[in-house]
Amino acid sequence: MSKPKDVYVNTAAKDWLPFYPGFQFKLLRVSAETGTWSVLVQADKGASFPCHTHLGAGEYFMVSGRMEVRGGAKNGGITANAGDYGYEPNGIVHDLTEFPLKTVFVFTNHGAVNFIDEAGKTVFILDWQAVLKLEADGLKAQKKALKKAA
Amino acid sequence: MSKPKDVYVNTAAKDWLPFYPGFQFKLLRVSAETGTWSVLVQADKGASFPCHTHLGAGEYFMVSGRMEVRGGAKNGGITANAGDYGYEPNGIVHDLTEFPLKTVFVFTNHGAVNFIDEAGKTVFILDWQAVLKLEADGLKAQKKALKKAA
Amino acid sequence: MSKPKDVYVNTAAKDWLPFYPGFQFKLLRVSAETGTWSVLVQADKGASFPCHTHLGAGEYFMVSGRMEVRGGAKNGGITANAGDYGYEPNGIVHDLTEFPLKTVFVFTNHGAVNFIDEAGKTVFILDWQAVLKLEADGLKAQKKALKKAA
Amino acid sequence: MSKPKDVYVNTAAKDWLPFYPGFQFKLLRVSAETGTWSVLVQADKGASFPCHTHLGAGEYFMVSGRMEVRGGAKNGGITANAGDYGYEPNGIVHDLTEFPLKTVFVFTNHGAVNFIDEAGKTVFILDWQAVLKLEADGLKAQKKALKKAA
Repeated sequence: MSKPKDVYVNTAAKDWLPFYPGFQFKLLRVSAETGTWSVLVQADKGASFPCHTHLGAGEYFMVSGRMEVRGGAKNGGITANAGDYGYEPNGIVHDLTEFPLKTVFVFTNHGAVNFIDEAGKTVFILDWQAVLKLEADGLKAQKKALKKAA
Repeated sequence: MSKPKDVYVNTAAKDWLPFYPGFQFKLLRVSAETGTWSVLVQADKGASFPCHTHLGAGEYFMVSGRMEVRGGAKNGGITANAGDYGYEPNGIVHDLTEFPLKTVFVFTNHGAVNFIDEAGKTVFILDWQAVLKLEADGLKAQKKALKKAA
Repeated sequence: MSKPKDVYVNTAAKDWLPFYPGFQFKLLRVSAETGTWSVLVQADKGASFPCHTHLGAGEYFMVSGRMEVRGGAKNGGITANAGDYGYEPNGIVHDLTEFPLKTVFVFTNHGAVNFIDEAGKTVFILDWQAVLKLEADGLKAQKKALKKAA
Repeated sequence: MSKPKDVYVNTAAKDWLPFYPGFQFKLLRVSAETGTWSVLVQADKGASFPCHTHLGAGEYFMVSGRMEVRGGAKNGGITANAGDYGYEPNGIVHDLTEFPLKTVFVFTNHGAVNFIDEAGKTVFILDWQAVLKLEADGLKAQKKALKKAA
């Protein structure tokens, strides 16, 4: 039986890759076995995530900036600043998550995120396989751009 | 902090409830935290599951009968009989799973199952919340039927 | 990235190997990543497990026989019979688990079991690595016995 | 069934509590169900962890400072700096982990850590329950000190 290997990511040596409009990411780790995926996310000032349902719990640690969950503290939600930590349980529905400042945070999701439209229909399922594909696509696009520039 | 409680299910004392056409189930346990759900499933002779993708690993233990996974052993898949155990990893796609005999098996799924149509579009997401709803609906229908019969 | 593979165990084709005095087992699966291990256990009539602490939740499904947890139902504990299912949370302490009949059950443990003496000192830690070693030792002893018999 | 609740920790509002000689911590989250615990750890310049075995995988994200795992990069191990991420698999044995600078890191452990002596005997098992006790003890000592000072 092969044992899982150590993972060590020197994040300074990796480029930010496109994650979602207004967001860039660096892959930290995915587990094909448990479906857990960990990423470092950078949000542009003013960026936001659309409505989504968590099919697995999510955890974050704020490195810099600010995140407003469910309208932020002034609306009964959460306003997370640098150094803060949060855990969002499996099954939670997030209407809108906003980033009023340029922000960097570590995000670990234990399973898939189900992005849905107004009617509740699945638009996109973001799981460990989709995250791996996002990284592969980002690296390919980067290589192509570098070639063109050369 | 509240500790998780013991679970003990005397399955003989529970009725079979509708799971999916051709299948009945008894709920063993769901975890709201991890999204894992465990059920005892009874398949009618000749029943089958349609195409689905696992968004979490699945495990089974065969109590009685027979299950043909991916066409069964004669087609390069698996034929599982009473006493057999299997683990299907996260991300696996199952075209068709068939039950040539009346069958009972324990099934634990670590996350959601994504039922898809021919175009790969999500038709139904079976997760721990959907399983709880199936049980609640089944018990309600049963109560109603008993009332009518009385 | 290598994907986890399917596991399929035809338990009838495997021999019972020594587990603990009075118990035999057949390995179903261990996960090096999560530390979860699943075994089919056979208990001799009258066998019992000594005092232990669960460093991970445990689950069982009774195939045949009877298990008396914490003194059994007549002492406020649980008496599990064929077809029954149970889940014992992480951190639980079991004084004594008894098997008044020859019994077979599926057991999945999500982590390690810490066997302790009367003073609470660790005597033996049964985790996925110890389970793999038990299987390797059992197969080696069996081979040796077969050689000697030949 | 009660759903797991949101966790949000404003770490700036919490005091550092004693973790291990040379280390302080702030509790982020423990899961009684899975045994996972997350802490923010502060290491004094020159602090180090003694020999231990992981009975569950561990993950870290470096907030500031430096950590030398298995002798650091110059000895074939890992030197992690601010912004770096690592995952150490279940079953790994760590001889010595050193902190040449004052360091802060997020640490999530999926299970217990088994601290052992030179003979491999268990000295202390650090699991979610031990972490909860460390926090309770730290808060109690702090209260007492404040009373005495008043």
